[in-house]
Amino acid sequence: MERRTFLRGAGMVAAAAGFGFKGVAGAAAGAGSAAGGGHASASSLKLGIAGYTFAKIPLDQGIAMMRRVGVNALSIKDFYLPMNSTAETIQLVKEKFSTNGIQIYAAGVIYMKTQAEVDRAFEYAKALGVDLIVGVPNPELLPYTEGKVKEYNIRVAIHNHGPEDKLYPSPVNVYDHIKGLDNRMGLCLDIGHASRAGADPVEIVGKYGNRIFDMHIKDLSEIAVKPKPIELGRGVLDIPGLVKALTKINYTGYCSIEHEMDMSDPLPGIAESAGYFRGVVKGEGWVGRG
Amino acid sequence: MERRTFLRGAGMVAAAAGFGFKGVAGAAAGAGSAAGGGHASASSLKLGIAGYTFAKIPLDQGIAMMRRVGVNALSIKDFYLPMNSTAETIQLVKEKFSTNGIQIYAAGVIYMKTQAEVDRAFEYAKALGVDLIVGVPNPELLPYTEGKVKEYNIRVAIHNHGPEDKLYPSPVNVYDHIKGLDNRMGLCLDIGHASRAGADPVEIVGKYGNRIFDMHIKDLSEIAVKPKPIELGRGVLDIPGLVKALTKINYTGYCSIEHEMDMSDPLPGIAESAGYFRGVVKGEGWVGRG
Repeated sequence: MERRTFLRGAGMVAAAAGFGFKGVAGAAAGAGSAAGGGHASASSLKLGIAGYTFAKIPLDQGIAMMRRVGVNALSIKDFYLPMNSTAETIQLVKEKFSTNGIQIYAAGVIYMKTQAEVDRAFEYAKALGVDLIVGVPNPELLPYTEGKVKEYNIRVAIHNHGPEDKLYPSPVNVYDHIKGLDNRMGLCLDIGHASRAGADPVEIVGKYGNRIFDMHIKDLSEIAVKPKPIELGRGVLDIPGLVKALTKINYTGYCSIEHEMDMSDPLPGIAESAGYFRGVVKGEGWVGRG
Repeated sequence: MERRTFLRGAGMVAAAAGFGFKGVAGAAAGAGSAAGGGHASASSLKLGIAGYTFAKIPLDQGIAMMRRVGVNALSIKDFYLPMNSTAETIQLVKEKFSTNGIQIYAAGVIYMKTQAEVDRAFEYAKALGVDLIVGVPNPELLPYTEGKVKEYNIRVAIHNHGPEDKLYPSPVNVYDHIKGLDNRMGLCLDIGHASRAGADPVEIVGKYGNRIFDMHIKDLSEIAVKPKPIELGRGVLDIPGLVKALTKINYTGYCSIEHEMDMSDPLPGIAESAGYFRGVVKGEGWVGRG
């Protein structure tokens, strides 16, 4: 093997590193598209953090953790920015993240049980400047929500929540609800809850990929109704299969780590999970190598 | 894809988890050998920690960090167990690790500038019960060291240390010194120092694989004489290529993370690096899948 081969992509990564703070996913995406010439590559998958990960972590620490692990995209939860925030507060929080190189790419998960809550979610998303709400509108509110999607041109990704959930236990239930609606209504596929509900995330990506706008990635100790959440790669979920399936459909959304263990001290687990995901993505390099 | 396929290896991992504390590498190895039927698999690669990683971390914290990241093998450095320790102290420290599910698989890096220091290193390794010294004997001591290798049946893996090192700057220098000696004398390939010295670790594995007994894995921000150490996967070193090369030669030693940044707070970086390595290894799953 020539030295050139060993250093594959080195220039791109170095260039990205020189660009100040930049997520590794972004750097890898650059290298991937340069090498692949338009060919679908796992390297273009974008890594993010699902806001719930920081349920017990103050805002400034959450930002510091994201910087430390080099992940620069967040789906923000209301505990970092209450739903009734003023436009000024929304701007301040948004700037706090952007100053630290972090993009708020979505708002959620947002529960919507009334029309007023749907209205509020869209106003909040608009003020935040995001084009995606990760949400759980009650099923009877779906036609109303669809009207708002058209009015605001903001997408809604409905989050599946596992077998005990009465509204959307499985991504299949979500899809059945949204398949006849505006195609800006889709899924936030939570691979842990989906697996608990008996759905295979890899299969779901293959079947409903064009309506998957967001992903919550995690791992489970076992496939059961109440498994232990665990660092990505230590459990039983097929992350390489998922990465392959997402690559095959040219998935353009984020793969956001939702870390649900050690919630008062999540940094090591987030770091391990981010490393694992990047490693699986990079493992693509195995294919077709001499 | 059938559910069975998605859960590939699930039983093995669950079994390993039920076995109390067990490194993930071990669990993966089980799944790999079951699936591969004797075929070389990256999943059999073993992850460890190189002792220098904990240069600024007290012993109990080092153990806690290893447990947290699920890595159960350590090449111990003298700051955790001084070279002049009594047999009792050696036993106490060894038991402290084993009680926590951690195997001390090697001692080092140990510098040996005199015959007395060679003697001491072998007595220390014997008392520790390890069959591997990661060491730097002065070149003029190599014949004497070879005698000790034969006497104790303890292997010596000589560690390369980069272009500024006068003794063994590159793994090529190490190999040139040991190629004519007992085949229990070999290399601890440090992929960072090797790259800094202009050697391609992937090529070195291909050429000298049968004499590589240990690995220090890490990443570099760029290929240069003085690059920044960086979390595995964020730099320019070809970890997937390395994993492939090690798999090809059925490497049976450890791949030990030597984390040389944030040394007073290394846990997140160790976790990210461990995750990345496991992800690359698991990325092998891409190959030959439908």
